[in-house]
Amino acid sequence: MKRYRAILHLAEKDRASLALNNVNNLLADLGDDLVEAEILANSEGVAALLKASPLGERVEELAARGVRFAVCSRTLRAMGIGEEEVIAVAEVVPTGTGELVKRQSEGWAYVRP
Amino acid sequence: MKRYRAILHLAEKDRASLALNNVNNLLADLGDDLVEAEILANSEGVAALLKASPLGERVEELAARGVRFAVCSRTLRAMGIGEEEVIAVAEVVPTGTGELVKRQSEGWAYVRP
Amino acid sequence: MKRYRAILHLAEKDRASLALNNVNNLLADLGDDLVEAEILANSEGVAALLKASPLGERVEELAARGVRFAVCSRTLRAMGIGEEEVIAVAEVVPTGTGELVKRQSEGWAYVRP
Repeated sequence: MKRYRAILHLAEKDRASLALNNVNNLLADLGDDLVEAEILANSEGVAALLKASPLGERVEELAARGVRFAVCSRTLRAMGIGEEEVIAVAEVVPTGTGELVKRQSEGWAYVRP
Repeated sequence: MKRYRAILHLAEKDRASLALNNVNNLLADLGDDLVEAEILANSEGVAALLKASPLGERVEELAARGVRFAVCSRTLRAMGIGEEEVIAVAEVVPTGTGELVKRQSEGWAYVRP
Repeated sequence: MKRYRAILHLAEKDRASLALNNVNNLLADLGDDLVEAEILANSEGVAALLKASPLGERVEELAARGVRFAVCSRTLRAMGIGEEEVIAVAEVVPTGTGELVKRQSEGWAYVRP
């Protein structure tokens, strides 16, 4: 278990780039070796983690450095988006809120970019 | 004490319906029996928990499933709203921020819809 | 160590006054003696903690009551703002997200006004 664990909650479309910057800064500040980080997208935030996203390359770079990406399945269903449209490095989780609560119950920090 | 405890912070008027969806999804995902949930409204978020709110029925349904609702008394005072205008199932607490901090000090997770 | 510790995350320009109200309410509710509070500004939130900010007097009043203020150095650099433009009572920290995660790892509550 790494020393720092943090889940970033991306729920607004226009804050996706900021969320990626935040994770990048977090790794640079505390060190890739000491930080386990995840970006969880629900609501309008899921757009950033679709294959059509202009941020795909940045997402893949962070995933290659160990950052996890998760997308809320209920948001996908509500918006009529198929799971095959989600970027390959992201995992589809049952619900975004459930993921946020489970992570925090395990001691992860929460950040809302 | 339930296994998961979460407080959702509703501070924007246009995110009230989303907050209710989030709690509904949380209960469906982790199970009503395992989750203790509260929606705390302050600032512009309090509108959703007034008797005049169009979301009243959804609030009451969740309250019947055990979800707690709390409203910041300082917001009410600052907005000139009487406590009698607050939906019956919601509790008026001294301050929203105090409630959020006390809950987290007791181990509750925080989510900002 | 005080009984309650909370870090408020200010990331939007138009929520600065609200964040100051939140801290003020928090102290009034739980008591100055029992609360250690910090406002961390990054992204568009840093404007409130610059010398040019119209909120400077309120910031200084809260600082005099023991509230800490911190500004993300990476945001300053990205926006071309020199550290000498930051209000004197605020501390410049390496990254805002790192500060939020470190504080929470030490048991501080998180609030996003």
